[in-house]
Amino acid sequence: MIYFDHAATTPIDPRVLKKMQPYLEEKFGNPSSIYALGREARSAIDQARQTIADILQCTPKEILFTGSGTESDNWAIFGLAEAQKKNGNHIITTKIEHHAVLNPCQELERRGFKVTYLDVDASGLINLEDLKKAITKDTILASIIYANNEIGTVQDIPAISKILHEQKILFHTDACQTPGLLPIDIPTLQVDAMTINSSKIYGPKAVGVLYLKEGTKIAPLLYGGGQEFRMRAGTENVAGIVGMAEALKIITQEQSHHLPHILNLRDLLIKNLLKLSGTRLNGDPVRRLANNVNISFESADGESLLLRLDMQQIAASSGSACTSGSLEPSHVLAALGLPPELIKNSLRLTLGHNNTVEEVETASRIITRIVEDLRMAK
Amino acid sequence: MIYFDHAATTPIDPRVLKKMQPYLEEKFGNPSSIYALGREARSAIDQARQTIADILQCTPKEILFTGSGTESDNWAIFGLAEAQKKNGNHIITTKIEHHAVLNPCQELERRGFKVTYLDVDASGLINLEDLKKAITKDTILASIIYANNEIGTVQDIPAISKILHEQKILFHTDACQTPGLLPIDIPTLQVDAMTINSSKIYGPKAVGVLYLKEGTKIAPLLYGGGQEFRMRAGTENVAGIVGMAEALKIITQEQSHHLPHILNLRDLLIKNLLKLSGTRLNGDPVRRLANNVNISFESADGESLLLRLDMQQIAASSGSACTSGSLEPSHVLAALGLPPELIKNSLRLTLGHNNTVEEVETASRIITRIVEDLRMAK
Repeated sequence: MIYFDHAATTPIDPRVLKKMQPYLEEKFGNPSSIYALGREARSAIDQARQTIADILQCTPKEILFTGSGTESDNWAIFGLAEAQKKNGNHIITTKIEHHAVLNPCQELERRGFKVTYLDVDASGLINLEDLKKAITKDTILASIIYANNEIGTVQDIPAISKILHEQKILFHTDACQTPGLLPIDIPTLQVDAMTINSSKIYGPKAVGVLYLKEGTKIAPLLYGGGQEFRMRAGTENVAGIVGMAEALKIITQEQSHHLPHILNLRDLLIKNLLKLSGTRLNGDPVRRLANNVNISFESADGESLLLRLDMQQIAASSGSACTSGSLEPSHVLAALGLPPELIKNSLRLTLGHNNTVEEVETASRIITRIVEDLRMAK
Repeated sequence: MIYFDHAATTPIDPRVLKKMQPYLEEKFGNPSSIYALGREARSAIDQARQTIADILQCTPKEILFTGSGTESDNWAIFGLAEAQKKNGNHIITTKIEHHAVLNPCQELERRGFKVTYLDVDASGLINLEDLKKAITKDTILASIIYANNEIGTVQDIPAISKILHEQKILFHTDACQTPGLLPIDIPTLQVDAMTINSSKIYGPKAVGVLYLKEGTKIAPLLYGGGQEFRMRAGTENVAGIVGMAEALKIITQEQSHHLPHILNLRDLLIKNLLKLSGTRLNGDPVRRLANNVNISFESADGESLLLRLDMQQIAASSGSACTSGSLEPSHVLAALGLPPELIKNSLRLTLGHNNTVEEVETASRIITRIVEDLRMAK
């Protein structure tokens, strides 16, 4: 199999699983228990928190473990809006957020908040002047995705932070796609809150982190026990937390080694596929995640393309977010101004450091042949 | 080590971990992906859902996977209250719920709901007449714990369901402590919603189930992707879900084998400890979880007792829920009417099927000696 869908999920790095294994076996204590087995689990979580804090260059108290990127995003949006509502009811986000940000914003609108969804240009970038103009005296929070999961466009987070902080507006970014590919340290990004998750960085599924700047008030999403500094209830996923920290450590340490390789594969894949006529690279050619390829093919149905790729053992996804069996057109590609046919006929290929030049060449040949076949059959 | 804290968490059954392992390794696909690797993950979740539905004797659509017992409890309370609020704003619960139910109820009070916290008698049972009297025309929801996690008292869930359904009130029960020890099938219990979790049944941590009767409206807690029939967003914890289903299957299949053994251990432990003067069994002697022992010792400080037990490699917990380092007096023991000193001096020992008669005898001797020592030192 050629796996080109790393933005959907990544395999667990064997070194990560090895580190998790004792916590799936003999080290099974509840971290809230005061006996040795419990203290051992508590200490593993403390250490994981410190590891992640070191990478983000923040304090351990600013690292909050959750059950997913979705939970971190939801918590940031609902929790910060709730805690800030006495100061205003306006939130700014973009039209190209992940649904884990977009849908909570829509829910907040139903609860009486006002939300501005910023447009993006043809390459997926927001306009900083638009952002400034969107700010009102009621603006309490902005959530803007760092690197888009479909098209890989990278926003200028430090510049956005500067604009928002001049107006004392809290800033959350969904950075799930970025570890190992872009800087994720807080001194560079200057955000107040940031979501990352484990299943995109060769860690286990169902673990997330919410970075939350010390002193920032947030309402809980999950109430109960006193875990996570009394802010997020529920017995900690010890093995998962240990795994996420190890995964982030490895991907960060090996970034300088893997990044040129991934970038090289990406550019080769783009070059090969754009040789076909009637193709279009979606997203920004320069401000782009090192592992993201998103291409639309004229007159070649995206769903048929995906199914044929699957038969050839190539794992890829389309511009359409396929959940519960129904293909919805991508809101991200729509925001770029793509016509419906090109939205439908788009292919997302996201690379990982285990991919090879041979895989890229093979996949390029297979994709080219399938697209030509689909066009002939029309 | 003698592990007598199965109500806090259980080790993962090696057979469960074995079943999870492929989903931590090569079967890492995102269940929303349409290619083979994704479909394989989807199919594993479907099968896990069917397994659990078969055990609960409900339909697979009624099984919703979450990230913990806490999340299931929170979702039931917040989600059902929100979906029902046009019909009233009154909720009934008890004074001995887990904090994952109690704290959401308190939060709902801050949001304008009214909550009745039913008293319990000296053995921890609610009075069904009290329940009937608490119902008003505004009552929309009741949440009553099936078997209490501290004292093991078992409420009469079928009788409670009957009373509530006559008044068309939704009923949720937190059943986290019960699988393998009590009936958990829906035809018997007749509840509308039920929380169970994996880390109490020899499954992995951070997986929960919310059973929700078909047709029952619930507001989401997590918004985003279309997972869990569009009701609970977030990439599914495939390995965890597979593990939870396997754990529930094993604990149910082996119930008739393990239950007499656990019951025997419990009664032996109670008999041994009550030989000491100045002791009191907390909770109901008859309507009691088969694995729960909760005893108060006059003039023997609970914290000192726990620390000395830890030094003797015995894992137990106290009536005090120890989280974030501060010992808060148990709200459950307080609700029984225990004086503060006996609350502080209580010990919870919860047994598992791997425990032995020898462990019970050894622990009984050690506990007796420590209690006598502590009393002498006074």
